[in-house]
Amino acid sequence: MESKVYVIGVGLTRIARLYDKGLTDLFAEASLKALEDAGWPEVDAVVVGSMLPSIHNEQSSLASLLAQSLPYTRGKMAVGVEDADNSGLAAVIKGYSLIASGLAKTVLVAGVEKMTEYPSAMAIRALSQACNAQHELFHGATLISLQALLMRLYMNTYGIDRDTMSAWPVLMHSNASENPYAQLRFKVTKEQVASSMMVSDPIRLLDSSPIGDGAAAIVLAASDAAGSRNNAVEIAAVAQASDTVGIAYREDPLRLLAAEKAARTAYEKAGIKARDLDVVELHDTTTILGLLGLEALGLSPRGKAAVMVDEGEFSSKSKPSVNLSGGLKARGHPAGATGVYQAAEIALQLRGDYPGRRAPDPEMGLALGLGGLGSTASIIVMRR
Amino acid sequence: MESKVYVIGVGLTRIARLYDKGLTDLFAEASLKALEDAGWPEVDAVVVGSMLPSIHNEQSSLASLLAQSLPYTRGKMAVGVEDADNSGLAAVIKGYSLIASGLAKTVLVAGVEKMTEYPSAMAIRALSQACNAQHELFHGATLISLQALLMRLYMNTYGIDRDTMSAWPVLMHSNASENPYAQLRFKVTKEQVASSMMVSDPIRLLDSSPIGDGAAAIVLAASDAAGSRNNAVEIAAVAQASDTVGIAYREDPLRLLAAEKAARTAYEKAGIKARDLDVVELHDTTTILGLLGLEALGLSPRGKAAVMVDEGEFSSKSKPSVNLSGGLKARGHPAGATGVYQAAEIALQLRGDYPGRRAPDPEMGLALGLGGLGSTASIIVMRR
Repeated sequence: MESKVYVIGVGLTRIARLYDKGLTDLFAEASLKALEDAGWPEVDAVVVGSMLPSIHNEQSSLASLLAQSLPYTRGKMAVGVEDADNSGLAAVIKGYSLIASGLAKTVLVAGVEKMTEYPSAMAIRALSQACNAQHELFHGATLISLQALLMRLYMNTYGIDRDTMSAWPVLMHSNASENPYAQLRFKVTKEQVASSMMVSDPIRLLDSSPIGDGAAAIVLAASDAAGSRNNAVEIAAVAQASDTVGIAYREDPLRLLAAEKAARTAYEKAGIKARDLDVVELHDTTTILGLLGLEALGLSPRGKAAVMVDEGEFSSKSKPSVNLSGGLKARGHPAGATGVYQAAEIALQLRGDYPGRRAPDPEMGLALGLGGLGSTASIIVMRR
Repeated sequence: MESKVYVIGVGLTRIARLYDKGLTDLFAEASLKALEDAGWPEVDAVVVGSMLPSIHNEQSSLASLLAQSLPYTRGKMAVGVEDADNSGLAAVIKGYSLIASGLAKTVLVAGVEKMTEYPSAMAIRALSQACNAQHELFHGATLISLQALLMRLYMNTYGIDRDTMSAWPVLMHSNASENPYAQLRFKVTKEQVASSMMVSDPIRLLDSSPIGDGAAAIVLAASDAAGSRNNAVEIAAVAQASDTVGIAYREDPLRLLAAEKAARTAYEKAGIKARDLDVVELHDTTTILGLLGLEALGLSPRGKAAVMVDEGEFSSKSKPSVNLSGGLKARGHPAGATGVYQAAEIALQLRGDYPGRRAPDPEMGLALGLGGLGSTASIIVMRR
């Protein structure tokens, strides 16, 4: 039933505090790059992933607004996807389904987010809408303070010390230092992580993804529209699953069940195992979600991810390489745009023209997006 | 490519000011009814259309939150659709694409909205996010005041008087008086419309849809999952298009271009003409959008819709019958839920068990959803 869907173009903006650029500017910059990369195909639909415009910009109808800003997309089917900070990959999956269902031949998927319109505290509060408003936010918990509880639980349960945990941000910053689109392009040491400002004990500033603005776009096409392009990347599988919004309701808070389920489905559909993956981008809002993501994907036994990272696994020389972009931690996390960055990065790695650190001759890639603390998980598997 | 998709179950709550019910209660009530109506099929995915929870309830991740509230949907793929007050029909189309693409066999689509958490003025402000935040809202315009400009322009351009315009709300209230799920179940006269409170000249209270809470759910299924149910209704076509967010940018503000385009596409896909339609539900936030919707669908020549309504067209004895539910005007308009009500109502009409006024033996039905002032339009065509 499902027809094949390809990524035929990608476009990225550098993530930064872009006080002089609005949502439309960011969308246009990323989309024009993606359309140029794709050879200016005719676009049937635009899908926009974004989390914050209703909260920060009083703007619903964002997909239509953005679609009218370019002659290539004006008047076309324009749909918005809102799935907290998983909006980006959810938008890619929406684009995929439009093509696989025959409703469109070519779709522009854009993730766009402005987080710096207001003070960072407000961005954190807005991001925290990914948590349970009645049972978590009401009591003063935030997306970060809940991850602090998870991080403490992980360290206590598995006997992991601060230095071992710090291996993750050290690797992420090292990767980001070579990514021209990353927000934080500097390396850090374990000592710097351990002495950085405490945000929510035990999460320190250098465990946390930054607040930034950015947009990413990819062009998806059906087999016939993809034609004989030699840089088209096939989407081998997509999957989504959900889990409680509220970590208190989870039997085991250290398992990302939605990500585990989505991974199982995606591996089965793509006919692969976790060990077949060459390159992965996953959703590390803070250090702990990065580690739990590795475990949910089956790339590490439970409780071992921090140690494996510390021992040098998941680097650009490993199989798989993980977050060569620098991840949310250091590439940046413009909420609803992040998943489209991930999809674009995996496509570029598989094409062999990623502008930062590359995985060694990768054939199979995966992107994992999470909403909040994993209450939703989206996975895309791509094949060269 | 597109496989056939059927509506196999529907569930509605009565629209009202339901101060004692939250989003989860409303979702559960409508969804359980729909699942029961469908014979308790196994559900692969949940799609939720909702506009206001990020604004009113500080709750993103709504689809996951709601999916966990029922054993039938827990852990399943859960996706949120945000497309202003067109979210409901956009969610139905998302559900359609999940099935037609082979990503799911059976999908629960729910539209859920709580508008009475705050004073009505805040609901109006929130709804107005469907307009252009920078170029309309910033200057104090609202979704209603912009429709007032359109209504005045329509009346002046075509020489239509207040009494003729009033035929629309009179028909809507008459239809709603027999709809057990409608918010405003009373008839009104032209005199009552003309003397009701002025909201934004020339829009009066009885021209306007009310503020209410509600949820609607439908179960969609692929051919094999729909089986041999004799009450399954086929979705013959879906279509979406976009237009400027900002009426000042339209060459002719009295044309709903997105709706016209979507209608053209939908008619072509379904292999029908406008005159083949037996029953229609369209998006009349206020009187003027109802009339412009009739014209965009090709059910009336331009400038003639008000006169045709006044002459008795579009009633339960006409072909097509329009808004037998009472429309947004009198059935009610719980923003992101409305489109799912419309889809459910059309399915019930075609099944022959609509609980209110019925179209005479209908075979072909259509639902039109608009975002804001028509910056997006979604259309679903169903066949008995």
